[in-house]
Amino acid sequence: MNSLNVHPDARLGQQMHDWMKDLFPICRSITGPGVRETLAYFRRLIPAMKIHAVPSGTPAFDWTVPDEWLIRGGFLEHEDGTRIVDFADHNLHVVGYSEPVDGWFALKELEPHLYSLPEQPDAIPYVTSYYRRHWGFCLPHRKRQTMKPGRYRAVIDSTLAPGELNYGEIVIPGQSDREIFLSTYICHPSMANNELSGPVVAAALAQWLMTLKERRYTYRIVFIPETIGAIVYLSKHLAHLKAKTDAGFVLTCLGDERTFSYLSSRLDNTLADRVARHVLDHLAPGYRKYSYLARGSDERQYCAPGVDLPVCLVMRSMFGEYPEYHTSLDNLDFVTPDGLAGGYKALRTCIEVLEANRVYRATVIGEPQLGKRNLYPNVSRHGSYGEDTRLLKDTLAYCDGKHDLIALAGRIGRPAWVVAEACERLRAAGLLAIDGG
Amino acid sequence: MNSLNVHPDARLGQQMHDWMKDLFPICRSITGPGVRETLAYFRRLIPAMKIHAVPSGTPAFDWTVPDEWLIRGGFLEHEDGTRIVDFADHNLHVVGYSEPVDGWFALKELEPHLYSLPEQPDAIPYVTSYYRRHWGFCLPHRKRQTMKPGRYRAVIDSTLAPGELNYGEIVIPGQSDREIFLSTYICHPSMANNELSGPVVAAALAQWLMTLKERRYTYRIVFIPETIGAIVYLSKHLAHLKAKTDAGFVLTCLGDERTFSYLSSRLDNTLADRVARHVLDHLAPGYRKYSYLARGSDERQYCAPGVDLPVCLVMRSMFGEYPEYHTSLDNLDFVTPDGLAGGYKALRTCIEVLEANRVYRATVIGEPQLGKRNLYPNVSRHGSYGEDTRLLKDTLAYCDGKHDLIALAGRIGRPAWVVAEACERLRAAGLLAIDGG
Amino acid sequence: MNSLNVHPDARLGQQMHDWMKDLFPICRSITGPGVRETLAYFRRLIPAMKIHAVPSGTPAFDWTVPDEWLIRGGFLEHEDGTRIVDFADHNLHVVGYSEPVDGWFALKELEPHLYSLPEQPDAIPYVTSYYRRHWGFCLPHRKRQTMKPGRYRAVIDSTLAPGELNYGEIVIPGQSDREIFLSTYICHPSMANNELSGPVVAAALAQWLMTLKERRYTYRIVFIPETIGAIVYLSKHLAHLKAKTDAGFVLTCLGDERTFSYLSSRLDNTLADRVARHVLDHLAPGYRKYSYLARGSDERQYCAPGVDLPVCLVMRSMFGEYPEYHTSLDNLDFVTPDGLAGGYKALRTCIEVLEANRVYRATVIGEPQLGKRNLYPNVSRHGSYGEDTRLLKDTLAYCDGKHDLIALAGRIGRPAWVVAEACERLRAAGLLAIDGG
Repeated sequence: MNSLNVHPDARLGQQMHDWMKDLFPICRSITGPGVRETLAYFRRLIPAMKIHAVPSGTPAFDWTVPDEWLIRGGFLEHEDGTRIVDFADHNLHVVGYSEPVDGWFALKELEPHLYSLPEQPDAIPYVTSYYRRHWGFCLPHRKRQTMKPGRYRAVIDSTLAPGELNYGEIVIPGQSDREIFLSTYICHPSMANNELSGPVVAAALAQWLMTLKERRYTYRIVFIPETIGAIVYLSKHLAHLKAKTDAGFVLTCLGDERTFSYLSSRLDNTLADRVARHVLDHLAPGYRKYSYLARGSDERQYCAPGVDLPVCLVMRSMFGEYPEYHTSLDNLDFVTPDGLAGGYKALRTCIEVLEANRVYRATVIGEPQLGKRNLYPNVSRHGSYGEDTRLLKDTLAYCDGKHDLIALAGRIGRPAWVVAEACERLRAAGLLAIDGG
Repeated sequence: MNSLNVHPDARLGQQMHDWMKDLFPICRSITGPGVRETLAYFRRLIPAMKIHAVPSGTPAFDWTVPDEWLIRGGFLEHEDGTRIVDFADHNLHVVGYSEPVDGWFALKELEPHLYSLPEQPDAIPYVTSYYRRHWGFCLPHRKRQTMKPGRYRAVIDSTLAPGELNYGEIVIPGQSDREIFLSTYICHPSMANNELSGPVVAAALAQWLMTLKERRYTYRIVFIPETIGAIVYLSKHLAHLKAKTDAGFVLTCLGDERTFSYLSSRLDNTLADRVARHVLDHLAPGYRKYSYLARGSDERQYCAPGVDLPVCLVMRSMFGEYPEYHTSLDNLDFVTPDGLAGGYKALRTCIEVLEANRVYRATVIGEPQLGKRNLYPNVSRHGSYGEDTRLLKDTLAYCDGKHDLIALAGRIGRPAWVVAEACERLRAAGLLAIDGG
Repeated sequence: MNSLNVHPDARLGQQMHDWMKDLFPICRSITGPGVRETLAYFRRLIPAMKIHAVPSGTPAFDWTVPDEWLIRGGFLEHEDGTRIVDFADHNLHVVGYSEPVDGWFALKELEPHLYSLPEQPDAIPYVTSYYRRHWGFCLPHRKRQTMKPGRYRAVIDSTLAPGELNYGEIVIPGQSDREIFLSTYICHPSMANNELSGPVVAAALAQWLMTLKERRYTYRIVFIPETIGAIVYLSKHLAHLKAKTDAGFVLTCLGDERTFSYLSSRLDNTLADRVARHVLDHLAPGYRKYSYLARGSDERQYCAPGVDLPVCLVMRSMFGEYPEYHTSLDNLDFVTPDGLAGGYKALRTCIEVLEANRVYRATVIGEPQLGKRNLYPNVSRHGSYGEDTRLLKDTLAYCDGKHDLIALAGRIGRPAWVVAEACERLRAAGLLAIDGG
């Protein structure tokens, strides 16, 4: 807990940004070599990561693991030789999970296979078609408007065939078998805030957690393809997760420099929600609060009826709420080292508060005599004791065995990390004990 | 439930208004031939109605059924032959339950027997004296001011003698013996919003309910004299009503075209209150909310301590809150076919929502794969799914076996009838089951 | 309860102010002859008071009863014979619990022993040093600025030696052994609002309570030195107080004429809080509400974790929140007879409401027939019954055995003393019974 004031510096922000640079060009999807390459990169950063494979066709609740997608290249070319788009230039140019195609098409025939954004004419949109066979190209609207009549050759050199779905899993044991669950996804091609900021912050948190001499909680951190990966992971671990998880977070959208956001769990009152709101109230006052109705990532699975894990999200600009979302504009300029450092700090603080979230109980009846312990000024006059004495007195006033640290800090209107330090000073003075500890 | 969008048209409003025209001239009181004539009219509309008679002198809780009142005529005439008021012109002219009188009075002697409204000089007020022997005339203040000195003959040809108290009762059985209770009153002479709008809407609802092929709930609909009728009915059926009633409404003030009103039950949190607020939130935003402290009709009995039925009121202009209330201005111009159609629609929607108010539970763990059921677009891009998909997803998110339809609809911010339809589509797709159903 | 409208007149305010004039010059501290003299004065007013003595060195929870302090005199004089301050002029001039001193000091050496308020240059501050040996003088800053260079003789003729701690205790038995606890403190020298207003109001309340023919509650009233006295009292009576106390108040700051204040108990929802807020809502709308975080007097002990008595404060200007606080400006001009009468009235009303705070239950089902009991007008027309009938009807509506008087009065938006009277009228009419009574 004494580490609570040691927060990431610019160096760590830069390191995460450097990792993103390495990972950005890889063409991830929900399956395939891009996912494996990405996971291998993270396993180099965190050797404790286990990488799992689940065969195509495996059922998982209402879903089935799909075929694996392999993309080697693709382009769209006018009969006069003008190349309109090329997968080699940007992997967003090909619709995710496109089936193979190699043929000549009139412009009109191409239309149902072209995706662009008239209101963001320079952006390439991100489009996928995981569960219906389809092919297509995504391109800036400005480019699309230059497409001349005539015939075009459309080539997508892809394979859709049984293979496997991969995900990474790190379990970092703590003193207790109660768990904190962190989930991030690794299925989006070249986009930075949604998604690479999530995995790199998760990796930095994992590295930090492993450096700690002791942890109260056990940490379970998964790097999965969104939706199908969460479904598959839940289908294997539901009973364990329900029995053991005290709080969890989906890590995504953690890298831009705009205001912070919070999206609540389905029922809005879990330990994860309480710590997230407390931390953002103090670190990022004015942050945006979204109800579960605005959900969009794997909290959809973790909070679903029957699953009901205590999972919420702490983010910078939330998915769907910033104009660069799901376009080529969500890039390494939009996400910055400082933005990442801030996202990391918010999540790490949540974890630190959870680690410190004990229930304290006063050991003496009535107010203790702080003066004889040099915790109170001995000459008493109006205004003679300052903020620190007030902090100690307020802390003692609510250490009644009924308030955990977060509730206590909320009651007395101070950050949990400040109150935790006060609690430990009072415990060292023999004035507080930890309930059940 | 598929009838939820089939709402009353102008035709039904006109029909209810026509019934009112037939009923308006009858001189109702809490007992007597006017009540019987009124009940007979409604029994012609709903042959299933049973008409009950309770003898004068019968005790009912703290009350006793009073003598029956028969009024044949009455007038007030100056010695010069000028007739000031005549019961034949308007049955509000004679104070309700007036004892008989035939004598000559100086103007000054008459004063304690005259009722008028200085601030509404053209209105005849409605005055009664049920529980103390008294006689009197009600007249427009403008007319009263023309009364010359001299002697007046006052004649009221009435009888007060043991007889009976009458009320009508309709029980429409449903699949369950859980009941919805509708209570309306038939004891006011020639006034339209308070009271005839209530019985005609109750009759239209009864006719509609009897056309339904199936009803989950059993419906108990009573047409009673206000206060003493409710007391008598409760004294006979208290244990049954307390054991069986899930929700109830007092039907009154349903016919003008002004804003809607809601008056809560005594403890403000019954199923009736929840459905009433939900329906008005969506059908009549901006409606007026009154606490139980503004109560005035038979909810006074149904919600009394020891009775505690889940009864509230959905109204147009509430009793006591519109200037025409309890005067001759509350007439068939003030109440309109459109006003009645709106009042009917509000109550019918409450009933429809109650009929549909099931608890649904998801049948799959995690989100279901909507795409393979053609409930979700297969090509995924930002903004690619619309309101309907969002509705289905939000509905599924809260079908956790803990939210009934009204709570579910409240959570996701949509009308219950829209959500009910979504639930049934999802049930047809095998994705939802009805709890205990 | 019929005494509820008989509130203190100017005469009682003047009497309390006269008592304060007698008590003001006594040099009280947490121990010593000043406390004993003060307690003796109050015992003359309330002969039932028992005065207790606890020897120095007695342990009490985390504390120890300190040595007794005796002060005979003290002064500070320049070598030229100018006397700067003299204890004989004002007993605030010597720091409370000063150890003896008699020596010559350069001005610079004196500085750590001088206390003044630059921003209130005419006020003598109140300073104590109970738990560390120290001596010092308090003086107006304006006087301090006139102190010339040179040597000063500082004399404090005091003794600190084992003795005793004294407190007064009055127990006034009632029909029930449930208790109301009033605590006030008698350890401050010459200051009026904080503190003498507290003990004189407590004494006036005790005198009044003893004149009552019957009391439902037993009253326990203590006059103690602040903090150490409360700790000592709790250490002797904790189990009894926890088992028996229904509500309690710390009496202080009750004599100025500014706005009223309320400071909540630690958990904010005790019977004491409910009655205090109800009474101030009606008697002193616009009063200031302070959370327990602003606490400062013996509520710190009574509400501490593990003690948790239902104790809050009703005050005029709260300690620490008015500029005269803890200075010589908190004097007999600042506290007035009218101010004291108002403070007394607020506390006495709280007690009267607690005495009347029964749970009533209707004896009849449905509304009773008020008319036959002459509680309702027999001729009924719109607006024909007035405020009194409405009061009776609203009272009956919530006498359901679930609302105590305070909750009932809150529900119907009227003062508890008005509702209590209505309840008793209805009880006399046989329409209400007292639950368990």
